Amino acid sequence: MEPPSPSLKNWSWAQAVMLGYFIFPFTPFNPINPISMTKQSQEYLDNLRHSCAHLLAAAVMQLWPNAKRAIGPSIENGFYFDFDFGKDKISEKDFGRIEKKMREIAPTWDGFKRHELPKEAAKKEYPGNPYKHELIDEFASKGEKLSFYKSGNYWDLCRGGHIDNPKKELQHFKLLSVAGAYWRGSEKNPMLTRIYATCWPSQKELDDYLKMREEAEKRDHRILGEKLGIFTFAEEVGMGLPLWLPKGTIIREELEAWAKETEKQWGYQRVATPHITKEELYKISGHLPYYAEDMYSPIDIEGAKYYLKPMNCPHHHMIYKSKIHSYRELPLRLTEYGQLYRFEQSGALHGLMRVRGFCQNDAHIYLAEKDVPGEFARVMEMHKYYYDRLGIKNFKIKLGLRDPKNLRKKYHGDDAMWKRAEKLTREGLEKSKVKFEEDIGSAAHYGPKGDVIIESVIGKEYAIGTVQVDLYMPSRFGLYFVNERGEHEQSAIIHRAPLGSHERMVGFLIEHFAGAFPVWLSPVQVAVLPISDKQVKYAQKVVDELVKNNIRVDFYNRPESIGKKIREAEIQKIPYMLIIGEKEQRAKSIAVRARNNKNLGVMKLDRFVDRVLKEIKTKKI
Amino acid sequence: MEPPSPSLKNWSWAQAVMLGYFIFPFTPFNPINPISMTKQSQEYLDNLRHSCAHLLAAAVMQLWPNAKRAIGPSIENGFYFDFDFGKDKISEKDFGRIEKKMREIAPTWDGFKRHELPKEAAKKEYPGNPYKHELIDEFASKGEKLSFYKSGNYWDLCRGGHIDNPKKELQHFKLLSVAGAYWRGSEKNPMLTRIYATCWPSQKELDDYLKMREEAEKRDHRILGEKLGIFTFAEEVGMGLPLWLPKGTIIREELEAWAKETEKQWGYQRVATPHITKEELYKISGHLPYYAEDMYSPIDIEGAKYYLKPMNCPHHHMIYKSKIHSYRELPLRLTEYGQLYRFEQSGALHGLMRVRGFCQNDAHIYLAEKDVPGEFARVMEMHKYYYDRLGIKNFKIKLGLRDPKNLRKKYHGDDAMWKRAEKLTREGLEKSKVKFEEDIGSAAHYGPKGDVIIESVIGKEYAIGTVQVDLYMPSRFGLYFVNERGEHEQSAIIHRAPLGSHERMVGFLIEHFAGAFPVWLSPVQVAVLPISDKQVKYAQKVVDELVKNNIRVDFYNRPESIGKKIREAEIQKIPYMLIIGEKEQRAKSIAVRARNNKNLGVMKLDRFVDRVLKEIKTKKI
Repeated sequence: MEPPSPSLKNWSWAQAVMLGYFIFPFTPFNPINPISMTKQSQEYLDNLRHSCAHLLAAAVMQLWPNAKRAIGPSIENGFYFDFDFGKDKISEKDFGRIEKKMREIAPTWDGFKRHELPKEAAKKEYPGNPYKHELIDEFASKGEKLSFYKSGNYWDLCRGGHIDNPKKELQHFKLLSVAGAYWRGSEKNPMLTRIYATCWPSQKELDDYLKMREEAEKRDHRILGEKLGIFTFAEEVGMGLPLWLPKGTIIREELEAWAKETEKQWGYQRVATPHITKEELYKISGHLPYYAEDMYSPIDIEGAKYYLKPMNCPHHHMIYKSKIHSYRELPLRLTEYGQLYRFEQSGALHGLMRVRGFCQNDAHIYLAEKDVPGEFARVMEMHKYYYDRLGIKNFKIKLGLRDPKNLRKKYHGDDAMWKRAEKLTREGLEKSKVKFEEDIGSAAHYGPKGDVIIESVIGKEYAIGTVQVDLYMPSRFGLYFVNERGEHEQSAIIHRAPLGSHERMVGFLIEHFAGAFPVWLSPVQVAVLPISDKQVKYAQKVVDELVKNNIRVDFYNRPESIGKKIREAEIQKIPYMLIIGEKEQRAKSIAVRARNNKNLGVMKLDRFVDRVLKEIKTKKI
Repeated sequence: MEPPSPSLKNWSWAQAVMLGYFIFPFTPFNPINPISMTKQSQEYLDNLRHSCAHLLAAAVMQLWPNAKRAIGPSIENGFYFDFDFGKDKISEKDFGRIEKKMREIAPTWDGFKRHELPKEAAKKEYPGNPYKHELIDEFASKGEKLSFYKSGNYWDLCRGGHIDNPKKELQHFKLLSVAGAYWRGSEKNPMLTRIYATCWPSQKELDDYLKMREEAEKRDHRILGEKLGIFTFAEEVGMGLPLWLPKGTIIREELEAWAKETEKQWGYQRVATPHITKEELYKISGHLPYYAEDMYSPIDIEGAKYYLKPMNCPHHHMIYKSKIHSYRELPLRLTEYGQLYRFEQSGALHGLMRVRGFCQNDAHIYLAEKDVPGEFARVMEMHKYYYDRLGIKNFKIKLGLRDPKNLRKKYHGDDAMWKRAEKLTREGLEKSKVKFEEDIGSAAHYGPKGDVIIESVIGKEYAIGTVQVDLYMPSRFGLYFVNERGEHEQSAIIHRAPLGSHERMVGFLIEHFAGAFPVWLSPVQVAVLPISDKQVKYAQKVVDELVKNNIRVDFYNRPESIGKKIREAEIQKIPYMLIIGEKEQRAKSIAVRARNNKNLGVMKLDRFVDRVLKEIKTKKI
């Protein structure tokens, strides 16, 4: 299966610059994507933010005239600008005066005026600025016009894409943070200073965004994940390679058990495939050379090259191919929580969200082409089922299509095949009534690609997996079945991964639930808190009874105050605390306190057990 | 955890030769090891077989005077001899006349007489034989004496180790097979012809061995595994990298679910760790350089070296180390079915038994040194539990100790540490009353190593995993806990893997059960066979009811004769067939036939379901 979405894939700097360095489709990792917050089109927002980047640079150049400008693209929900400040250091403390300067300049900007310069003249506009000189040389070498845009007294090399009335429209902005960033993303280049900022059409939208950003920071899975004992990283093991701690492993395994049970009911068959594989397989699949830059360097075994697998598809195809199939067996659905390894630059790594190795809820469905729309709708049904149970109210498909204006070599297969695959995908999407939007140019190399985008309770969006109709790989691998007429007919394939990878899904769920997982997913479901040592014996019986019922329990039996125990259980976001004092012991009962300080009163243990077991069984959120 | 046993590890040819090329501890893969069959000591058997190797070579040299002898060691249950036959081709068709010649020569052999020769004289004994010349040069360069042994008219370069009375003792032998084998195991060298043979103290023992060998061939997991749809290999994926088919994946997952449930009851906590890791970690653990030749070549990521992990230990240590532990938390048991990759030469690969990647039932127990014997005994208790449930009647520990005469550099740690670790291991073994035997020289580089050897119903033995007391790694990794007195105390570690790897365990179980798995492990538990089309509708209801009860069922609803369906279900070794004819349909019942043609009569479905569910629950064998 193709990696989810360009918006979450490793961003190729060079590629981005090629595509137009001001308005390019770079969306950084971990977007807060409140599309619902504004009715403005994405194009307008990009123009607004790109214009605001000019404004930021204008202010900075007035305050630090020796600074050298590099680039300043719009990104998801905002923009940034990279500067070389030389010996000067700037920090968030400077934001006040930069913003003030921006507000002084904005009223002087009536519009953006374009003019062109020849190469040498263009370079003279940036004396001693190697970044701009490099860009100018690059653009010129490709015969591009060197356009400049001017507003007020400020101008910059720029490909355009602005708002009409900066004076009026550039009002609702905020500088957010400062970070170091290598020029063109490469460690070999100098480190520049990047200022991140945002800009919105109205104060209300800006305020909403900042509020959501603040909420998102509180829910940051990297911080919560360590605090709740879900995962950790170790320098000696390597970046982007999480170590799953016992509590995190419980969450992974609950998800996997759920997938296993669900997929069994839906007629899937589990398989298991190796993580390293000879290059021959990837030559058949075309991953070599088309996906090579996302793969790790090969391992040499007795003179042959072996690669860490970046996708499970080729292995599943080999399993399908290992016997002859009759139409009676189709659709044949092979599924695996398969461990994949894809190259990410160290600078792009981000907690569990962008890692170098991940375990994907992958499946490949082999079927007759005519059955694709129906099965596709069935697959979307399964997506809905999962997301509904997780309290994910919104999800959509971003349908990656070929760019007809840019039929680069990276696309396999002929035109007719692509048209059929697109048609089948659209039919499936329409049948399933899932929300979808088209994204020209982001197809996989072997077919149209549906990125599945899920939205957390605070409106953060993540690309979690993809769904794809693939008519190409069957011809590469020679995958067929014997149809009703006894003929060999080429199989079609649907790729799908509704739960994405454990890594991204657990990262998402930490933020979605702010660490307060529903009972069935909670690593510890119940904490038992005796008020004093005198209740420890009775409390132990309570613990034993819970364990007997397969409820995950933590026994707070250390000689600490009940206040401290309660605080600890709250920090750990344990769904239920059973507080046991003298009264409860005497009455052979328990005092139940739910998360967030909800007192459920005193009850008999069996009633509580029933309640918890029911919540687990129904996956109550 | 160290790889199981030298007897199943990749055999180093050079090492074997160094150790004495006639009597060396090389035990080839896949041994049939009927120790119970003979009361003779292993040393006597080695001498007998080594003597018989001389006899084989004597016969061959009479029949093919131009053949060049290479080497002929005793191996487990027999011996082989490698020859260069030049242009001559020999095959099993020649065995009759070779054996006849051996029987002619044997009565002329009264004993083995030793004499020594200087290097050049020794070489003259083998004109034009580059193999012997190479060995002679090698031995001479190390200052070894060049000894020859003569019996009758035959002599050969040999380090000794013979029986006293060949005339009498060399009677019960048999040639077994012919194979190609590279000189010194390297593909760069010429291919020689290897004759495998066996020899026993009595005809009864020889007959028993041959019978068992024949039985073992029928149970060969490679043949049964493909036939039953358990696993397959693909050239394009690579040798030694199994693709687990749906049926095999069910078996893996049943084993894993069992381990998970059992380990939970025994107080283990599951974790999940990555498969690639920076070289730094293996430098800390000492796997680099001490285990380097079993590891694959590194992957380069942004200039750093990453290795496929050959063991889970270092990762578990890092998880243990990620927080401070109190004595109250100990023993802390971290467990993972972890995927490992170790180098094996392609020539050494063997079905599921010797692979390049495998998934190991691994755990590491962190505890106070004083608690080691008790926990060790508890670990052995768990081994017993597992093996008992699988019908494995015999298992033993081969305790690998340091060779005090050969304290090579490969051992870490000081003498006192080794003595303590040995003492704790012995105490644990004695406490657990497990059968064990000592094996000097096969310790792990960081401590004594207990290879766990299990025996199948036909007496075949396999090293399935290891159990180890490790006092060394805690010092390398800085693993400690806060003891009762508030001091930092170094932790001890027990490594264990009772179910070994999925690969070897499933391979073993295929042979152990001859493919007829107990119901709980059977990929298909029940086959439903309607006699004609008229019963298909009722049969479907039967299928639905079984599925509802989580019983794995195959519906034989194709328009084929009932005889054909029964044969097919028998080949697939499905535990139960439910045969449904007109009578059964009318009576709303089923006719039940167990594996191996056992007719259980007609019964109501719910009675049958109860029976099957009980067998599953109790893991009945």
